[in-house]
Amino acid sequence: MNYGIVLNVLGGLLRFLGIIMTIPLLVAVYYNESLLPFILAIAITGITGFLLSYRHTSDGDWKKREGFAIVAFGWLAAALFGSIPFMLDGITPINALFESMSGFTTTGATVLVDIESHSKSILFWRSMTQWIGGMGIIMLFIAILPKLGVAGRQLFRAEAPGPTEDKIRPRIRETAKILWMVYVIISAIEVVALMLAGMNGYDAISHTFTTMACGGFSPYANSVAEFQSPLIEGIITLFMFIAGANFALHYKTLYSNHKSLIKDDEFKFYSLVVIIATLLLTFSLWKDMGEGVLTSFRYAAFQVVSIVTTTGYATVDFNLWTDSAKVVLLSVMFIGGCAGSTAGGIKVVRFLLLLKYAQRALFKSIHPRAVKTLKFNDKSVPEDVLQAIISFVVIYFMIFAISTGLLALMGMDLVSSFTASIATLGNIGPGFNLVGPMASFDVVPVLGKLLLIGNMWIGRLEVFTVIVMFTPEFWKR
Amino acid sequence: MNYGIVLNVLGGLLRFLGIIMTIPLLVAVYYNESLLPFILAIAITGITGFLLSYRHTSDGDWKKREGFAIVAFGWLAAALFGSIPFMLDGITPINALFESMSGFTTTGATVLVDIESHSKSILFWRSMTQWIGGMGIIMLFIAILPKLGVAGRQLFRAEAPGPTEDKIRPRIRETAKILWMVYVIISAIEVVALMLAGMNGYDAISHTFTTMACGGFSPYANSVAEFQSPLIEGIITLFMFIAGANFALHYKTLYSNHKSLIKDDEFKFYSLVVIIATLLLTFSLWKDMGEGVLTSFRYAAFQVVSIVTTTGYATVDFNLWTDSAKVVLLSVMFIGGCAGSTAGGIKVVRFLLLLKYAQRALFKSIHPRAVKTLKFNDKSVPEDVLQAIISFVVIYFMIFAISTGLLALMGMDLVSSFTASIATLGNIGPGFNLVGPMASFDVVPVLGKLLLIGNMWIGRLEVFTVIVMFTPEFWKR
Repeated sequence: MNYGIVLNVLGGLLRFLGIIMTIPLLVAVYYNESLLPFILAIAITGITGFLLSYRHTSDGDWKKREGFAIVAFGWLAAALFGSIPFMLDGITPINALFESMSGFTTTGATVLVDIESHSKSILFWRSMTQWIGGMGIIMLFIAILPKLGVAGRQLFRAEAPGPTEDKIRPRIRETAKILWMVYVIISAIEVVALMLAGMNGYDAISHTFTTMACGGFSPYANSVAEFQSPLIEGIITLFMFIAGANFALHYKTLYSNHKSLIKDDEFKFYSLVVIIATLLLTFSLWKDMGEGVLTSFRYAAFQVVSIVTTTGYATVDFNLWTDSAKVVLLSVMFIGGCAGSTAGGIKVVRFLLLLKYAQRALFKSIHPRAVKTLKFNDKSVPEDVLQAIISFVVIYFMIFAISTGLLALMGMDLVSSFTASIATLGNIGPGFNLVGPMASFDVVPVLGKLLLIGNMWIGRLEVFTVIVMFTPEFWKR
Repeated sequence: MNYGIVLNVLGGLLRFLGIIMTIPLLVAVYYNESLLPFILAIAITGITGFLLSYRHTSDGDWKKREGFAIVAFGWLAAALFGSIPFMLDGITPINALFESMSGFTTTGATVLVDIESHSKSILFWRSMTQWIGGMGIIMLFIAILPKLGVAGRQLFRAEAPGPTEDKIRPRIRETAKILWMVYVIISAIEVVALMLAGMNGYDAISHTFTTMACGGFSPYANSVAEFQSPLIEGIITLFMFIAGANFALHYKTLYSNHKSLIKDDEFKFYSLVVIIATLLLTFSLWKDMGEGVLTSFRYAAFQVVSIVTTTGYATVDFNLWTDSAKVVLLSVMFIGGCAGSTAGGIKVVRFLLLLKYAQRALFKSIHPRAVKTLKFNDKSVPEDVLQAIISFVVIYFMIFAISTGLLALMGMDLVSSFTASIATLGNIGPGFNLVGPMASFDVVPVLGKLLLIGNMWIGRLEVFTVIVMFTPEFWKR
């Protein structure tokens, strides 16, 4: 392991974070709020970043291990330093770290109890951490992970736009620039749309930050229900749906082949999941909750897209729904959005390939000698990609099961333990019962909060990136 | 498909079932109870069996498809005809089929509401269906499935005792004889042990039937709690533990290599799971429920072994326990007993190999070019066996998720839907909430009961055996 280069890059990241923090500082100036949390945070983050970069050189090779370490510790460092403004705002260190990790991992689970009691600048920073995290995730998946040869990423590499040299840094820069542009453009369109629909600038930007990141933080305890506007809900539903699809395909659709998105197998299946779940949920709300068909559809479409894309906004306290409605949401929690999006979860492509894998297994149990390759977008899927997907799902479920068990052993009820685990590991945000959409994760015991912080971190970085660092193999020379 | 041979064998099975039914008839004679249910059932079953065998010849090849069809329809036929005595006892047809399927699949879920209101002979037949089902399962796994080349069975084939000719029928006969003997001998020992501990003959035989089959039916609504005897609980715990281990290894341990069992990787891991879960549960009961350490251990050991082995007996209404205690039971529900035992579930060996698979995946994400084979009992596990295990687990979880979703959509609460699904698919018996150990599955809606009957059938026959028959491929000529 070349520690020098890891620390150097982390230093650069912190300096970038310090600069970014000037934006909430300006918000604080504008609203005449306390500047101290941001000034101190900028100073600490910037100086640490400068010292790290100054004391360590970026010379040498950037290989797989260094890549893993940079990604995993990069997210951890962002969460740690990003929590400074929250701490200076009077939030306890564990809660500040939870909120910050929930931000940078675009989860959206909150430990705040009285959200509106916090200043506008602090809440702006809270939303902004998600937008930065979302941008980071797109870059990670489309530009960085394939280069690190993370198993299974080969599948998505073909989708990545930009040049195809083999040197890692120029390619990352080029791809990053393009994605950054697409992300900013779509975000800008959402801000304008939300303002046209009647939101003020602050609300429009805050909600755009957390929509585009599939994050789910809102400056209001009532989340999107605050606005009681079908138009705003429609706009947010559309942009959540976009943010939950592959940004490389968005780029292609905008700039080259306009049919890239609708011809993609993953996007088709993603749309199918949204449609089926919305219909089921509409039916359930209409039948069991006595809502009108249109109202049921309005709630269902928003909530399904919010959960499939792992955003986690709510327009209604779905914790009060019947279990037959809840089970629809619970099912899609385990699927998640598309690869190359800002959404978390297992991801549609993995789910789809697992289905095909099972189908092939059935076929093979009748024709054991038949050779059948799986197709995705008309290409054969290599067996090692399938193996990587399976390993991912196996480890994902193990972590999920261990997390559920530990929370229950800490005294939380089963449904809360179960949904708090998947809501953090899948970077969704809210669960059911104690951790419902209008509730706060503050009720989770301290050890449980640490566990959930770990879930968010592990889930966001596709499990392996974090888990490998806990193996002795990783640290062997 | 050679329909003639399938129907011929099914006919033979029904004739056997008709003969077996004379035993509960004798019980009815002994207790001076109504003979009609059994006389009619014997007549219907025997005549149908005779007609099927008489009209169809056993000539021709018995190949894979025929094997699958015989196994799947054999269990279904046993459940159907085995339900006749229940129906004639006044139980509704759906409930009778549920109870009979729960018997022959050694599940132990019951739809009876007032168990003691039924006659001794009917309850004897109910327990006996499990013992017959358990015997069938051991034969199926050790003698039949490996011969049908069911994917993944290769792993356990090596364990099977008996000659090794390749002709299917002589080998099945030979192996079956040996296993039948081991099963009968261990059962006889349990009957004697339970009678020495104070049970009467009827109770000892009934409980032995359902212990040895990892079934869980009891003629008492209070299950094993009826006896309030630590000695009886200890004996049943021991025999459940034995029945949940590989019978081929029991044979080897008794007749050739006395260390076969304790040197087996699966048995070691099975023991480890039981020990860890018992300790966790003891701690939870002691801490949260205010029980003494010894009482906690007594309840914990019995309940953990009962659930790991998918028996489903209870010495206490564990539905009243805290969620932290319940989560321990819930975790082991997903593991199940050993391959080649009468237990259901995913099976310890699959779980163990999945763990090793995940471990290898982590190793490979650091050393992508390293070749590493998985070891089980010091032998390399072929990749196709691993693939088969993974396919099994994927399909198992899909069925589980669909079942949970459907039950919730029918209006059952989440925890009941979740646990009713795993309790039937894993052939365990009781779940939590509505379907707790002292409750009845009678509360499940009719469509839900049909679904759970399907779960028991599919789960007992290792998923593939049943599922392949729903593929068009299977019926193609």
